[in-house]
Amino acid sequence: MKIIWCTALLSLLLFTLAGTAQQKVPFRNNIPVAPTGLADRPLPRSPIEFDTAEGQRIRVVVVTKGLTYPWSLAFLPDGGILVAERTGKLRIVRNGVLDPQPIAGVPASRYAGKSGEPGAVHGLMDLVLHPGFAENHLVYFTYTKPLEGERSTNALARGRWDGKALTEVRDIFVAQPGAGASRIAFGRDGTIFMTNGGNDPQDLKSHGGKLLRVRDDGSVPSDNPFVGREGVKPEIYSLGHRTSLGLAIHPVTGEVWENENGPNGGDEINIIRPGRNYGWPIVSFGRTYQGPWQAERPTHDGFEPPVVFWMPSIAVSGMAFYTGNRLPKWKGDVFVGSLRTGEIPGTGHLERILFNEKMEELRRESLLVELHQRIRDVRQGPDELLYVLTDAEDGAVLRIEPAQ
Amino acid sequence: MKIIWCTALLSLLLFTLAGTAQQKVPFRNNIPVAPTGLADRPLPRSPIEFDTAEGQRIRVVVVTKGLTYPWSLAFLPDGGILVAERTGKLRIVRNGVLDPQPIAGVPASRYAGKSGEPGAVHGLMDLVLHPGFAENHLVYFTYTKPLEGERSTNALARGRWDGKALTEVRDIFVAQPGAGASRIAFGRDGTIFMTNGGNDPQDLKSHGGKLLRVRDDGSVPSDNPFVGREGVKPEIYSLGHRTSLGLAIHPVTGEVWENENGPNGGDEINIIRPGRNYGWPIVSFGRTYQGPWQAERPTHDGFEPPVVFWMPSIAVSGMAFYTGNRLPKWKGDVFVGSLRTGEIPGTGHLERILFNEKMEELRRESLLVELHQRIRDVRQGPDELLYVLTDAEDGAVLRIEPAQ
Repeated sequence: MKIIWCTALLSLLLFTLAGTAQQKVPFRNNIPVAPTGLADRPLPRSPIEFDTAEGQRIRVVVVTKGLTYPWSLAFLPDGGILVAERTGKLRIVRNGVLDPQPIAGVPASRYAGKSGEPGAVHGLMDLVLHPGFAENHLVYFTYTKPLEGERSTNALARGRWDGKALTEVRDIFVAQPGAGASRIAFGRDGTIFMTNGGNDPQDLKSHGGKLLRVRDDGSVPSDNPFVGREGVKPEIYSLGHRTSLGLAIHPVTGEVWENENGPNGGDEINIIRPGRNYGWPIVSFGRTYQGPWQAERPTHDGFEPPVVFWMPSIAVSGMAFYTGNRLPKWKGDVFVGSLRTGEIPGTGHLERILFNEKMEELRRESLLVELHQRIRDVRQGPDELLYVLTDAEDGAVLRIEPAQ
Repeated sequence: MKIIWCTALLSLLLFTLAGTAQQKVPFRNNIPVAPTGLADRPLPRSPIEFDTAEGQRIRVVVVTKGLTYPWSLAFLPDGGILVAERTGKLRIVRNGVLDPQPIAGVPASRYAGKSGEPGAVHGLMDLVLHPGFAENHLVYFTYTKPLEGERSTNALARGRWDGKALTEVRDIFVAQPGAGASRIAFGRDGTIFMTNGGNDPQDLKSHGGKLLRVRDDGSVPSDNPFVGREGVKPEIYSLGHRTSLGLAIHPVTGEVWENENGPNGGDEINIIRPGRNYGWPIVSFGRTYQGPWQAERPTHDGFEPPVVFWMPSIAVSGMAFYTGNRLPKWKGDVFVGSLRTGEIPGTGHLERILFNEKMEELRRESLLVELHQRIRDVRQGPDELLYVLTDAEDGAVLRIEPAQ
C-alpha cells in the first residue's frame, strides 16, 4: 500500500511542479464540461406513488405526453388545459387527451436548440389568462419575436379565446432586442409583471435583466417606480435580475415572488419591491463557470438579498404557491421546478419550500427526483392538485394527487 | 374554476386576518418537523452500475453489510479493512468477509441514539493509521469517553495492532467535557489534526468547536498558533467551527481541508489556516431551524470564508481527495459523504466536487442518489478505488469501481 501511495504522491508532485498554481492538483481540464446528456428517461406508463417528507403520500399521473418542450400551462374554465410549447405552438388538452392540432392564431416565434444548451432561443414561453377571462376571454403570452436578420426580442401579446383558436392577437409590449427568457403574472391590481432576461441588468436604459410592469393593454402604469425619469425605460419595476424563469403572486399578501438562475450556484427567490436592485452581476452567492466567485460579496448594502438561495444551482424554473386542500400537508408551501438535480445529466426535480409565518425558510424537499425529468413549470389546478410540465422533446403534463 | 379560486382566496384571507404576521400564509405549523424516517432501503444484492456526469460509468459493489452505524475505515497493508462502529466496536473485513468477532482492546465508549437524531451520542468515531504504521503498527482513533455520571468527552487514543487486536491502548489527548463529533487526520509533518465539536466555538478557553493539533504522542506542538497565550487551550489550531464530520489533507499542498455542518443551510468546506476564525456562530450562510438567518452576514472581515458551501444543507460527512488512476475522470476531485439528500427522509448521497487549478469550484455532482443511503465516510483504498460507508443499523462498506 505504501509504495502505491508514494508513487501516486510522487506523480502528483511532479505534475504540480510542471504547473504554475501553488495549489494545483491534477484534473482533467479547467474548462467546465457540459455533462453528456443521458437519453431522456421514459416516464412510467401507469401512475406512480411516492412517500414524501411530511408523510404526504402522493400519486403522480401522466396526463399527457407528446408535448415538445412545454414551457407553461393555463387552465380554462371549461376544464381544458392550454399548453405553450417552446417550439412555438399552443396546444390544448381536453379530457386528458392532447389535441393533435395546434391552436390557430399564435404569431410566429423564434425557437432554436434544446433547452439549456448554448445558443438555445426560447420561442413561445409563458401563458396566463386575464383575471377577467370569464368575461373577456383574453389570453396573455410571451414569445421570442423574430426581428430582421438574426435578431429577436421578447414580446408580450394577447389574444381572445373563441373556444377553438386565438383571435384579435396583437403584441401589447415589445422589449428592446436581445431579451432572454420570460415569465408573466397578473398582479392583484390587474397589472402584468413580466420577467425579461438579457444583458445590462444594471442599466435603466435597457429592458434586459429587469422585471417589467405594464397594464393589461401594454401601457405603462403611472405609478411604476421610474416613470418620468429621463432616459429610463418606464416599464422597469425592479432591476439587477439574471435569467428569470419563475414568477408567482403571493396568495395572501399579493407580493411578487420572482426566481432567477445564478451562474455556478446562486439561484435565488426574491420578493420584489418597486425600484429595488436585486444585484446581478454585482452581488451574487454563486461562482462563475470558470471557478472564481462571481462577486466579492454575496450581499451588500443597497441590494436586495434573496429570500431563498441555492448552492449549488438547481436551475430554478416555474414557481407556484400551493393553496389547496387536496394535498393538505403542502398547504402554504412554495413549489419550484428544477432543470438540474445534483448535476445528474438531463435530470431535474420539483423543489418544495416550507416557510414560517414570517416567510422565513424552514426547509426544502426534493420531489419527483426518481423520475429524472427536467421540470419547466408547476401550477395549481382548479381541482387544487398540482400540475407539472417536463422539459423534454417528448414532454409531459404530470398531475400530483394525494395517494391513500 | 373562478368560484373555487374565490373560495380558496377568501378562506386564505380570513385565515390571515386571524393571524398577526403581515405575510402569513396558512401552513401546518411553524416548528421544524423532523421528517419521519422511511425504513432503511435495502442495498442491491448484486453490483449496480451508474452513468455519471463525466461519462465515468461506475459499478458499486457491496463489500460487506452487517456493520452497526460504521463511522470510519482504515486500510491495513495486508489487505484487511478496519471499520469503527459508532456503537463502540472495531471490526475487521478480511478478503471481503466481515469477521463476526470485534477486535479486542478498544476502550469503552459512550453511544446513544440513532445517528442524526436528537440526543444521539457518537461513540467510536474516526480511525487512521500512523504514517509510519508499517514500522510502528500504531492505530489512532477518537471516541466519546464516558466520564462520571452522564458526562462524556472526546478522547484521542492510540493502540498497537498486533495482527489480531489492539494492544498498549491509551488516551493521548482528552478534550474538555461536552465535546461533540470528531475526525482526525495526520498532517504532512506528522502532527494530528482533530476536529472537535461542542459549545463555545469562539472561546479560546474551550476545546469546543475547534480544530485541534497535537503531536503523535498527544503533546502540544510548539508552533501551534496560540501556544503561550495565557488561559488559552494550546491544542487549538483554528476556531469558530460547527459540527465537523470531514477532514482530509490536500494531497499536493498538504493543506488541511475541513468540512462542517451548517444548521438550516450553510454546510461548508474550509481550508484551515493556523489561528484563523471560521466564524460559527457569528457568520454563516445558513438559517436557524426556526427560520431566521443565523447571522446578519454570510461572511465578514476577520472570518475565513468557506471554499465550498451548501444551501440547503446536505449534512456533510467524511471527505477524501481522489488521486488514483482507476477512475480517471475523477482524478483530483473531492468527495464528501452526505447524510441528507433533498430532505428525502433517511437518504443521502456521495457528493463529488470539481475544482480548477486554483482550487476554485467548477461544479458538483450527486452520486449514488438512487441507493437512498446516508453516507458517513469516503476513503480512497490502496487499490485506487473509492470506499464508502453507509450510516445505517445494517451499515455497509461499498466499493466504487470503473464499469466497462
